[in-house]
Amino acid sequence: MKIKEYTSGLKTSNAMLIARYTRGVTQNGAPYLSITFQDSSGEIEGKIWDVKAEQEARIQVGLIAEVKFDVNQYKQALQLRVHDLEIKDQKNYVLEEFVNAGQFDINFLRSEITAMIETIADPIIKDLVVANMDAVGEQFYQYPAATRNHHDFVGGLATHVYGMAKLAESVCELYPIYNRDLLLAGVILHDMGKIEEYTAPLLSEYSVAGRLLGHISIMQANFTMIATQLGYADKEQTLLLRHMILSHHGQLDYGSPVMPMVKEAEMLNFIDNMDARTNMFDKFYGDLGEGEFSSRMFALDNRNFYKAKGVK
Amino acid sequence: MKIKEYTSGLKTSNAMLIARYTRGVTQNGAPYLSITFQDSSGEIEGKIWDVKAEQEARIQVGLIAEVKFDVNQYKQALQLRVHDLEIKDQKNYVLEEFVNAGQFDINFLRSEITAMIETIADPIIKDLVVANMDAVGEQFYQYPAATRNHHDFVGGLATHVYGMAKLAESVCELYPIYNRDLLLAGVILHDMGKIEEYTAPLLSEYSVAGRLLGHISIMQANFTMIATQLGYADKEQTLLLRHMILSHHGQLDYGSPVMPMVKEAEMLNFIDNMDARTNMFDKFYGDLGEGEFSSRMFALDNRNFYKAKGVK
Amino acid sequence: MKIKEYTSGLKTSNAMLIARYTRGVTQNGAPYLSITFQDSSGEIEGKIWDVKAEQEARIQVGLIAEVKFDVNQYKQALQLRVHDLEIKDQKNYVLEEFVNAGQFDINFLRSEITAMIETIADPIIKDLVVANMDAVGEQFYQYPAATRNHHDFVGGLATHVYGMAKLAESVCELYPIYNRDLLLAGVILHDMGKIEEYTAPLLSEYSVAGRLLGHISIMQANFTMIATQLGYADKEQTLLLRHMILSHHGQLDYGSPVMPMVKEAEMLNFIDNMDARTNMFDKFYGDLGEGEFSSRMFALDNRNFYKAKGVK
Amino acid sequence: MKIKEYTSGLKTSNAMLIARYTRGVTQNGAPYLSITFQDSSGEIEGKIWDVKAEQEARIQVGLIAEVKFDVNQYKQALQLRVHDLEIKDQKNYVLEEFVNAGQFDINFLRSEITAMIETIADPIIKDLVVANMDAVGEQFYQYPAATRNHHDFVGGLATHVYGMAKLAESVCELYPIYNRDLLLAGVILHDMGKIEEYTAPLLSEYSVAGRLLGHISIMQANFTMIATQLGYADKEQTLLLRHMILSHHGQLDYGSPVMPMVKEAEMLNFIDNMDARTNMFDKFYGDLGEGEFSSRMFALDNRNFYKAKGVK
Amino acid sequence: MKIKEYTSGLKTSNAMLIARYTRGVTQNGAPYLSITFQDSSGEIEGKIWDVKAEQEARIQVGLIAEVKFDVNQYKQALQLRVHDLEIKDQKNYVLEEFVNAGQFDINFLRSEITAMIETIADPIIKDLVVANMDAVGEQFYQYPAATRNHHDFVGGLATHVYGMAKLAESVCELYPIYNRDLLLAGVILHDMGKIEEYTAPLLSEYSVAGRLLGHISIMQANFTMIATQLGYADKEQTLLLRHMILSHHGQLDYGSPVMPMVKEAEMLNFIDNMDARTNMFDKFYGDLGEGEFSSRMFALDNRNFYKAKGVK
Amino acid sequence: MKIKEYTSGLKTSNAMLIARYTRGVTQNGAPYLSITFQDSSGEIEGKIWDVKAEQEARIQVGLIAEVKFDVNQYKQALQLRVHDLEIKDQKNYVLEEFVNAGQFDINFLRSEITAMIETIADPIIKDLVVANMDAVGEQFYQYPAATRNHHDFVGGLATHVYGMAKLAESVCELYPIYNRDLLLAGVILHDMGKIEEYTAPLLSEYSVAGRLLGHISIMQANFTMIATQLGYADKEQTLLLRHMILSHHGQLDYGSPVMPMVKEAEMLNFIDNMDARTNMFDKFYGDLGEGEFSSRMFALDNRNFYKAKGVK
Repeated sequence: MKIKEYTSGLKTSNAMLIARYTRGVTQNGAPYLSITFQDSSGEIEGKIWDVKAEQEARIQVGLIAEVKFDVNQYKQALQLRVHDLEIKDQKNYVLEEFVNAGQFDINFLRSEITAMIETIADPIIKDLVVANMDAVGEQFYQYPAATRNHHDFVGGLATHVYGMAKLAESVCELYPIYNRDLLLAGVILHDMGKIEEYTAPLLSEYSVAGRLLGHISIMQANFTMIATQLGYADKEQTLLLRHMILSHHGQLDYGSPVMPMVKEAEMLNFIDNMDARTNMFDKFYGDLGEGEFSSRMFALDNRNFYKAKGVK
Repeated sequence: MKIKEYTSGLKTSNAMLIARYTRGVTQNGAPYLSITFQDSSGEIEGKIWDVKAEQEARIQVGLIAEVKFDVNQYKQALQLRVHDLEIKDQKNYVLEEFVNAGQFDINFLRSEITAMIETIADPIIKDLVVANMDAVGEQFYQYPAATRNHHDFVGGLATHVYGMAKLAESVCELYPIYNRDLLLAGVILHDMGKIEEYTAPLLSEYSVAGRLLGHISIMQANFTMIATQLGYADKEQTLLLRHMILSHHGQLDYGSPVMPMVKEAEMLNFIDNMDARTNMFDKFYGDLGEGEFSSRMFALDNRNFYKAKGVK
Repeated sequence: MKIKEYTSGLKTSNAMLIARYTRGVTQNGAPYLSITFQDSSGEIEGKIWDVKAEQEARIQVGLIAEVKFDVNQYKQALQLRVHDLEIKDQKNYVLEEFVNAGQFDINFLRSEITAMIETIADPIIKDLVVANMDAVGEQFYQYPAATRNHHDFVGGLATHVYGMAKLAESVCELYPIYNRDLLLAGVILHDMGKIEEYTAPLLSEYSVAGRLLGHISIMQANFTMIATQLGYADKEQTLLLRHMILSHHGQLDYGSPVMPMVKEAEMLNFIDNMDARTNMFDKFYGDLGEGEFSSRMFALDNRNFYKAKGVK
Repeated sequence: MKIKEYTSGLKTSNAMLIARYTRGVTQNGAPYLSITFQDSSGEIEGKIWDVKAEQEARIQVGLIAEVKFDVNQYKQALQLRVHDLEIKDQKNYVLEEFVNAGQFDINFLRSEITAMIETIADPIIKDLVVANMDAVGEQFYQYPAATRNHHDFVGGLATHVYGMAKLAESVCELYPIYNRDLLLAGVILHDMGKIEEYTAPLLSEYSVAGRLLGHISIMQANFTMIATQLGYADKEQTLLLRHMILSHHGQLDYGSPVMPMVKEAEMLNFIDNMDARTNMFDKFYGDLGEGEFSSRMFALDNRNFYKAKGVK
Repeated sequence: MKIKEYTSGLKTSNAMLIARYTRGVTQNGAPYLSITFQDSSGEIEGKIWDVKAEQEARIQVGLIAEVKFDVNQYKQALQLRVHDLEIKDQKNYVLEEFVNAGQFDINFLRSEITAMIETIADPIIKDLVVANMDAVGEQFYQYPAATRNHHDFVGGLATHVYGMAKLAESVCELYPIYNRDLLLAGVILHDMGKIEEYTAPLLSEYSVAGRLLGHISIMQANFTMIATQLGYADKEQTLLLRHMILSHHGQLDYGSPVMPMVKEAEMLNFIDNMDARTNMFDKFYGDLGEGEFSSRMFALDNRNFYKAKGVK
Repeated sequence: MKIKEYTSGLKTSNAMLIARYTRGVTQNGAPYLSITFQDSSGEIEGKIWDVKAEQEARIQVGLIAEVKFDVNQYKQALQLRVHDLEIKDQKNYVLEEFVNAGQFDINFLRSEITAMIETIADPIIKDLVVANMDAVGEQFYQYPAATRNHHDFVGGLATHVYGMAKLAESVCELYPIYNRDLLLAGVILHDMGKIEEYTAPLLSEYSVAGRLLGHISIMQANFTMIATQLGYADKEQTLLLRHMILSHHGQLDYGSPVMPMVKEAEMLNFIDNMDARTNMFDKFYGDLGEGEFSSRMFALDNRNFYKAKGVK
């Protein structure tokens, strides 16, 4: 049974991953734990009242637990009242069942993106892309594209790049004034700095370097070092791709130190936003009923989005 | 010979359209005229010094004139010194040679857009689009999409809609969560109010209604009237398309009274911007030399755009 | 006894209207209800602990209930602990005693506003106002002018229009450069779209159309349709009133798609704000003690307003 | 003959006041003077080509000159070509014929405002107003309310205060929640600091103190000194009027160090704006033709205002 | 034992100052008190459950109480469960042990600042500073420089002025273009209005005058009165210091009615910010572990500050 | 004779450097040249009317010319009418007499900054600073710190760094919570990217890389490469200095991709601004008369600065 299927009143046991937890004390002085559980269908909060030391000792972020609980309604959300919690041998579980799953298989993404890189005609751009991909290796296919909001799952970065690349190809076909090699390279490289900006592919948080530098500046420095090692420090292609990495958030206010000043840089910003927003819509439109408005979406300018009635 | 081919020092005669003119007086008290001439290749300013009354009487915006002039450099631009100017029978000229030309033939645009409308599956959406197209008739294929900046030529509106529709189709193929009927209808309808916002398909200015109401509000009212006549006033499709027309500028600051709150409305805004900017790039990148920056582009946040060297 | 008269410690029974309610569960797993009760003097929150199924079944928004309760202080506000709640025959109650009451009688407002319309000298403007009033009928005298903040009561819209019209008349007398017919018509029409923007005259919320279109765009479309039916589509008066409806929020940021560009439109925005703010002051200054500051008022730029000591 | 009556081609002599002038040199190295002349109907620019030393020696800002000139059209405006310029005995001229004239006689304004002060019921507020009026004396009836934009004529401050006071009285009658004494005192005092902010009642510029302190802070300090001398330093009335003087621009961005936090302070800001804008409309609407838009008005958020056709 | 030394699980008695308190009622209807206690090391919140009338009667803000309690963890913070609370003779306590302590002794600050004033060479500036210091007397050495954020302790204002004056002296030595007399006087005078803006040196809140006028306008008026009494109303020095007081927040948005327009005024704003921020860093960096980020600092643009690892 | 000493009416010959020039044509069709000349005292514009081909052929930016001219007043500025212009052997001139001169000798700056680097105690920080200084070599002492506004002269960058370093030392002495090594290193490194951002130490313009990347991102990449080569890629010191380079503009709007989040980074931003503004004041205050306001200073928020009368 998946978390999304729980209903108020349910009493059962189930395996769930411990995503986060905090300790508290009730007004009567009794200690309790608030634990956020997750599986591939979503998250839910649970409480262990009158928590015992031996229970607390078992809790660890990232472990999958066998949880005995009943489900209550609390302030317009469901909440678990946890009666017991056991940690069994972790080898018995398939991790993919407990984390958000992307829509694409990692192998599919790897072969598609590798094939796309092969289509880059400009040899310098191709060398630069290949060398940067080699530098991050398999992490490219594991990291998420964001810690929340969009593509926040194992493989999220590659999924985002794949979606953007498909859209970039359409744009280049419809509008031949854009340089396909540049735009494709920009798509593949633009968010690679997130591998250092986050701490891990799974349950990822911002790293210290991520907070103090940001993925844009991390990637620009890494890319420049690799270009220099390849002897391409002064090539026009290097300059253009550094600019595209730096400007891909589109505005200074959004963390880009320069605005796009090359036509492909401008398109990169649009394509990035369209793919990211589509992924966000994908996440929350499914949960909306027809004729309903979403809650305020912080990452979408606090807008409430509407799901049409009858018109899909 | 086209205006774009003029060089400093040239002395010749040529037919050009009178786009605008103003009267002046020199420091020495002599009256003169400043005339902006145009043909399909661009615009140029000319001066008639010591203008005579009979010359001035011939001048009229929209007429094609036989002009005798020489070309000088003035403050980093070329300027004509007009020696004489004659108005001959206008029937001898082909108007298309004197106005900006779009890249597509009007007949091609008409048949393409008509065919696209045929592909709309939802009968109410299709009825609404057809009835609105019927209401504006052939003007849809004549008006520009802007008075300057982008698609500012006869057929500009249809060219813009056609480019957007192609991109919208790609988006719907890549991301099946978007309703193709809605997005296509939004593309076709969103700027139709410009037919009332501007005064004419050629040499167009903002009309009084255009300035006091804006094309967004004009179109929302027109659309609602037509929907009401069709008996669709309370249909979900009518509501969604009214919202898409109103929100297509994306932000209150840009003249939309509501922000996009439906997923297709969000995409409409991105697609509109991408097609408009591509057209702007198309206009000025051609004039830039490699390794050069453009002047500040007002409609592009005052940015200077760069044309890469060697990397096309 | 009215809600405003309740004091901490009071134990009694009273009839109150159920404005809103939500279900909850305590930390101990017991279900409870949070109900917002109201009468003509204001609102108060109440809790039913250990709610029974038969109690919950009786609760319905909009019903008047006989409630047995005691009053406690909770976080700087009073709160009811509800012991029992009964629903009797609703015909025994006078609804006006349970909803916010405006200061004016509906009949008074209707006759005053009708008389004002009679004073409009321009026949086209008068026709337009009359036809629009006819289209909304008695709803004009029932709807509020806002769901909260100001004039949020049955008859609020008409009260707001009446107050503004009186102020508009003073402005026109003091400053003869303003066209009285236009300004008066603008006052009467500007917020009429709220009748579609809200769901009901009583306990009103935003409708779906209200959220996706806004009352400004709703009214501009309705007005244009009625003007077209009257044969006034191309009249200057129609254009000016469409502009005044669109621009009455004064700024793009506040939801007007165009700023005021006609002198009467500029005044309409000032008069609207002055009357709305006066009504807000009226609501909260009464509850302030002398020498006290109000809490932060969200609709007034988060300001804390001060009530003078001794100087009334 | 008044400046407003000049037409292109006119050759005549006339007396005009010298408002400003600058020296220049033509491309051919010849010195010339640009002089702005004014009379009670408006301003016009004139040029003296090949200016002679003895001519230049006569020029002085503020003098009325007998000017011999002809009128030319230059860049959509008229311009004078000055042939000669003589300075005669200044006593022969009536100054009022050469400066912008307010609509009210100074004696009328003095008696009206003095009578209004008499109607203030609160003795402390009345004392404060009277003492502050005594401190500035006759200057109150001579200074303008702005150096340009609105009420920029001798008596402009008093005219602005008179207009605002009439509107304030209407507001207090319509909305009894406002304290008439406070609002009237705020109206009379709010701009009194302009007497130090500007250099003179006529041809006024900003003084050094005006630029470094601003009229708001100048007046708040003067008012506090006078209140202290009267023994009213700690009175509530003093505090409220200091607050109203400080907050009357409504927003920090507009130079008020605090936002209005007293209900009468909020109204003072609205009334100030309504009267100022009415005066601006009065100035430029008269020059507009029906169906025309004004040029961009800097003091009105760069808007172009429209003059209706047929509907006055 | 100091508050900062408390740990979860501790049960003890201790003397602490009552800084603030509020009454509440639990879900079960039992009254309780929330009290914020403080001593020189910091603050902590405590709860008295089932509070008895005689306990509540003893509570008074500003009293030092003997409190019997145990310490619990509650939502990532410690909290006291208060078992009993007694008020003994207040003379037995040394107040300094219960309030935030500045790093400097008041006598030291007084003699340093007095000596600095002696070094002012310009006799008018010196007179102005001395007279203003005399007017506020010993309060200058008792008031805080802010109610929270920075220098929020007895003597905070003098500590802030002392730090700024030392920095101002360095700036004047390094950059001789700054007038030392002016800058030093600006430092000493700029925040003196806080003595009226706050209610008291200890446990201070904003006064009514503080909220309606602000310390900038209060001080500008006071300074002008004193300068006028000294016969210096029209001196350049008076004008410059009024400007420096008014402009020291640097921007209109931050409450200065004018921006700095004199070079020393610009430096005053920088020096003010540097000393204030250093004091804020001093307060929270001590509590951060190495490699940790602070929580969001509201007074520092919501930034999270980082404490380096190993590199002190 | 220096440019600053020229007065209207002067006729003479003098050697001046050609800083910029443009070609034009008069209304009468005659070609002319506008040349900006400079020497160590400043700049002046000159015109050559009826320019001959052989004259034009001699003109080249960067050459020192012997110019024969007279000086005229034109629109509130002086302008040269150039009669002849000759280019002699450039070896006869001392370049320093023709460019803006800093106040410090390059040798002095080199020995002072080198000595400062020696005082850095942390060996990793010292290594990083030394290696980066080595990488740019003598250019560090030649480049300006800005193309205009502040420190826009040969040696400007080193002069700016020297001034900031002295101020940083004072700050660290007064406030021991700041890490002197970090702050000093930040001062030396922060603007080093300007060596790539500008095209040359003399008559410098923005390079293509400077416009597309900016000195902040250029330097962060260069610094990271050097740190990596030294084996310091993962050192805390490297991370902190990368952050300080990135954040030194203080705000995203000013081109920093991250805001300062380390206390020394915050101070670096203040010190940078204080030194830059002092240099700006130094440049224009000298030209102001007492009691005068400067023109609007674009780089200082369009403020007009005031020079006090009598109070230096």
